[in-house]
Amino acid sequence: MAKRIVLTSDHAGFRLKEFLKKDLIEKGYVVVDDNPVLEEGDDYPDRVFSAAPKVKHDQGIFVCGTGIGMCIAANKEKGIIAADCSMPKEAHLARAHNNANVLCLGARLLTRDQAKRIMYTFLKTSFEGGRHARRVEKLA
Amino acid sequence: MAKRIVLTSDHAGFRLKEFLKKDLIEKGYVVVDDNPVLEEGDDYPDRVFSAAPKVKHDQGIFVCGTGIGMCIAANKEKGIIAADCSMPKEAHLARAHNNANVLCLGARLLTRDQAKRIMYTFLKTSFEGGRHARRVEKLA
Repeated sequence: MAKRIVLTSDHAGFRLKEFLKKDLIEKGYVVVDDNPVLEEGDDYPDRVFSAAPKVKHDQGIFVCGTGIGMCIAANKEKGIIAADCSMPKEAHLARAHNNANVLCLGARLLTRDQAKRIMYTFLKTSFEGGRHARRVEKLA
Repeated sequence: MAKRIVLTSDHAGFRLKEFLKKDLIEKGYVVVDDNPVLEEGDDYPDRVFSAAPKVKHDQGIFVCGTGIGMCIAANKEKGIIAADCSMPKEAHLARAHNNANVLCLGARLLTRDQAKRIMYTFLKTSFEGGRHARRVEKLA
């Protein structure tokens, strides 16, 4: 079964989100885009609080200017473990050690190619469990 | 009046936290270290949930292996706006746009010099307010 990915962005992340969406669809992922129409000057918390409840057993990719605002807002939500990653190594560790279910990306800090590499590292890495599971349980 | 900084770390971040603490004290900051004794194998959520309530009108510097676990746990706490930063530019934007009050650093991903530069950028940057204030209010 194809993996289902929930996407959102604010105005600053919109173009990168569109680019990543196209690539995901080409690769066979099922994409739920919670914000398919650009709204200039919109606020990242509104985007997160709309999209986060749709991330259940799926994963989310949330894009803003820096990834920071998305990551703050997403982690305020119950059941969301969000990581703002600026390199593939962070994305690997966010999945392997933190079992993150939302990846936050900064459109103003990353090239498209960097963002793609970070995203696919995130999507293809499994949680290691073990001692990390005890820590993740404490986040709930 | 000297700025008060709340510090904590898990085992992976302990040495970098000690290094940053020494530097802060030398520069005249008032430091509250919530975890002054290394405990091997301790869990980042425990450290965060102990230290976060001590960050009131102050700022916090929380260090783990990647900064990711600290950032997830810290943002789960009411009143905390935490940013995991891997470069000074991110630290600048986390303060200027997101009014972050906790900086999370990854000891396994940063050199001591990088960590210092990120930390002082964070501590010396003010919140810009304006349209960013509306967004930050929505996080509460």
